[in-house]
Amino acid sequence: MINVSVYRRPIFAAAMYAQQPRILTVENMNPNVKKMEYAVRGPLVIRAVNIEKEIANGTKKPFKSVIKANIGDAHAMGQRPITFFREVLACVTFPPLMQTGQFPKDVIDHAKTILNDCGGCSVGSYSQSVGVNIIRKHVAEFISRRDDISSDPENILLCGGASDGIRNILKLFVNKNSTVKTGVMVPIPQYPLYSATIEEYNLGLVGYYLDEQKNWGITLNELERALTESKKEFDVRVLCIINPGNPTGQVLSKENIKEIIRFAHNHKLFILADEVYQDNIYGDGCKFHSFRKIMSEMGQPHSEIEIASFYSVSKGYMGECGLRGGYVEVVNMDKDVFAHLKKMCSAKLCSTVIGQIAMDCAVNPPKQGDPSYELWFEEKTNTIKSLKERAMLVQKVYDSIKGISCNPIQGAMYAFPQIMLPEKAILKAKALNQEADFFYAMQLLESCGVCVVPGSGFGQKPGTYHFRTTILPQLPLMKEMMERFTAFHEKFMQEFS
Amino acid sequence: MINVSVYRRPIFAAAMYAQQPRILTVENMNPNVKKMEYAVRGPLVIRAVNIEKEIANGTKKPFKSVIKANIGDAHAMGQRPITFFREVLACVTFPPLMQTGQFPKDVIDHAKTILNDCGGCSVGSYSQSVGVNIIRKHVAEFISRRDDISSDPENILLCGGASDGIRNILKLFVNKNSTVKTGVMVPIPQYPLYSATIEEYNLGLVGYYLDEQKNWGITLNELERALTESKKEFDVRVLCIINPGNPTGQVLSKENIKEIIRFAHNHKLFILADEVYQDNIYGDGCKFHSFRKIMSEMGQPHSEIEIASFYSVSKGYMGECGLRGGYVEVVNMDKDVFAHLKKMCSAKLCSTVIGQIAMDCAVNPPKQGDPSYELWFEEKTNTIKSLKERAMLVQKVYDSIKGISCNPIQGAMYAFPQIMLPEKAILKAKALNQEADFFYAMQLLESCGVCVVPGSGFGQKPGTYHFRTTILPQLPLMKEMMERFTAFHEKFMQEFS
Repeated sequence: MINVSVYRRPIFAAAMYAQQPRILTVENMNPNVKKMEYAVRGPLVIRAVNIEKEIANGTKKPFKSVIKANIGDAHAMGQRPITFFREVLACVTFPPLMQTGQFPKDVIDHAKTILNDCGGCSVGSYSQSVGVNIIRKHVAEFISRRDDISSDPENILLCGGASDGIRNILKLFVNKNSTVKTGVMVPIPQYPLYSATIEEYNLGLVGYYLDEQKNWGITLNELERALTESKKEFDVRVLCIINPGNPTGQVLSKENIKEIIRFAHNHKLFILADEVYQDNIYGDGCKFHSFRKIMSEMGQPHSEIEIASFYSVSKGYMGECGLRGGYVEVVNMDKDVFAHLKKMCSAKLCSTVIGQIAMDCAVNPPKQGDPSYELWFEEKTNTIKSLKERAMLVQKVYDSIKGISCNPIQGAMYAFPQIMLPEKAILKAKALNQEADFFYAMQLLESCGVCVVPGSGFGQKPGTYHFRTTILPQLPLMKEMMERFTAFHEKFMQEFS
Repeated sequence: MINVSVYRRPIFAAAMYAQQPRILTVENMNPNVKKMEYAVRGPLVIRAVNIEKEIANGTKKPFKSVIKANIGDAHAMGQRPITFFREVLACVTFPPLMQTGQFPKDVIDHAKTILNDCGGCSVGSYSQSVGVNIIRKHVAEFISRRDDISSDPENILLCGGASDGIRNILKLFVNKNSTVKTGVMVPIPQYPLYSATIEEYNLGLVGYYLDEQKNWGITLNELERALTESKKEFDVRVLCIINPGNPTGQVLSKENIKEIIRFAHNHKLFILADEVYQDNIYGDGCKFHSFRKIMSEMGQPHSEIEIASFYSVSKGYMGECGLRGGYVEVVNMDKDVFAHLKKMCSAKLCSTVIGQIAMDCAVNPPKQGDPSYELWFEEKTNTIKSLKERAMLVQKVYDSIKGISCNPIQGAMYAFPQIMLPEKAILKAKALNQEADFFYAMQLLESCGVCVVPGSGFGQKPGTYHFRTTILPQLPLMKEMMERFTAFHEKFMQEFS
């Protein structure tokens, strides 16, 4: 017979609990936060972290470590920081280092220039909400140099990574007084920051499909279709473009960008140009063209389109994700709206000054002849070269596997291969109440310790299945990953064919 | 006769402009962002920055520089960074420094411990969205030591300053499905982050007045009044407490905290304990008591109240505002709501790793016997001592001026003196369509270059007028500020009496 007395305390506690219902519950909490999804850090990644803990605690697994190819986090996958950036950051955080003679003159000059523009010459002071003035100036000079157009420092807002900037701009479009939601056009597949933020802000997601047959290109027909079909439901006012593409790795041609700009003008759309991967170009003949530059070249009326463009220190050759530095350049925005935007930023005080300074290093790197130039150039070139090698390797291996097809990776940091899943696997997933590509990716993780993100987290054409993998593991690990993957895939296909 | 032809181009441009109405306008933008106000960085501060530019450009003014006493930005006002913090930050940003022999062993150990828990041993990697694990552990240990209770690292979220954490928690209470807004009780006067965020999120502000006669104390009667009167309009579910008070500088007694906790329990309120000034205690016999500790001491049912408490590296003795480091400890939150909160954080990737490491230095400083201990202790003690001296000086001077009364500054970094404005000044302000204390503060700025924030930016009882000034200018500048102020005030009172 069960001894009831030992249960008395838990029952009592449960009764107490019943008398103390929670004030904040899943039922009464913010419904938009509930709906949000963020696959890049979703259930698969949580499971990956748990598997790592299991391995650390001695649990036997058929692999010795988890390879995390789920997130564009270069340093975590072994990429080395750029010396110039870190030397400048060391000097600004601990200025006595500038007197020890151990750092080159240009590093010290750089650090001093910035500190002179910080309150009390300390990175511990708040900057203006829009950022440290001299850094905004350097950003504008960078854009002017890059695009051969004039950029106004007053239009630059420094922010805590591009995500922060994108969220700030999208927030302006929330229109609670209206019964019709503002529609935001985003590519499908897309980076889930967009879908998550659109959910959180109660905006309307208007997906336009990238054309997988045309190397994930953007076609006018599809933009028109997506817009027309959503007009009944939403007041569509924003067009987001990710170039180079995340998760799809395409680099838009100048002609394509012109078409898109004409489309935006014809339909009165505000352009959000997510250009954080502008340094990550690998494809032969591919070149990064900023929307801002092409708009400007097209002249009136296209040069008057409202646009916000984004850059970040998290990507490129520097990969400084943890520092949280980014900027948004806002062009042609109504000046009163812009004043409200700046006021809204001020309630968050300022973005991290260290992140801002990392951005300064990115937009104002050593010049030829400076003592740091050669090392900086070598590190930069080698990093991009190595990323390119890995991009080529990954695409080649995936595309050679039966049941997988993978477009060329022209830019950014990801491959987005399609998996031809057998019917049996799809049914099995359904029975488990899972998306079929989630099921596939979870099997991959459990059986061989490779963590990728299922395509359903980014969106894809119904009936197609993909996953996103980064190209960031260093070459030996990357080769191991491809071996583990190939073995898994063959076994999976056998099991479910 | 005017030559019309020269005007042709501007007219053409204007016509073009008319054909190109903006997509995003003040009329159709987010109405909540429009309504937001943030006085600490409002029109007065914008004017102060412009005056500084005018002085730099050679404009003659009756003063040689603007003294900015508007914002709690210690380093900008000359406070020196704490060496230990900056040495650790230098080592984590540029690890080769750890091999040069120039830093003490405990600094290096500290840096290594953290780097070992960062992806790829780099501060350039994303941390988990909730923060670097070892730092969350150190935060929990800090709370356990401080309060003699057990704190769970799983309940700690690292965030970009306390503001970021407060905004994340308040966001959970947005309830768009309901026709009744969630009411949030905030002290009046309050720190405008609360009113601004409440506007931005479309929540309901329920102000409870602090009692100026009782040194800005919180009384039960007033809490009951505020709650009762707002119940018709709002579903009141949150009680914000700022202790030590900003802008009012009071430190709550243990008994007072117990009363407030009972009130929260009786009325089913989630407590937001803004405790960022916990290190800034100056008043004789005053002591910081955390809400979490008192709740826990009171036992059931009060120990089961849902609470979020906040700390920051921006205040205290370190004053590292620009680094953006903070934490929130969440206790008794429904576990599914907590999972949604963590998911929401993940869409913002992570807070700055450098800010997180600064928080680590704050919660895990050198221990007695460590090579850095003596210097750290000396710097910490001297900083707090100096702040205390300035708190005493400021209060004494203000309170001795005719037409001004100022409560003792028991803690935090501000004085909030009351000005007995003459009727004539109030009428003059009205004629200018300004708040009377805004008018007063603007005159103060224009005529003697002292920048403070009018009380209307924080809220105050109708018919009373105040301003907030920080106690942060270093002693010589502080003395100059008090002299400038006293001269201005006498002249102002003469002019309008």
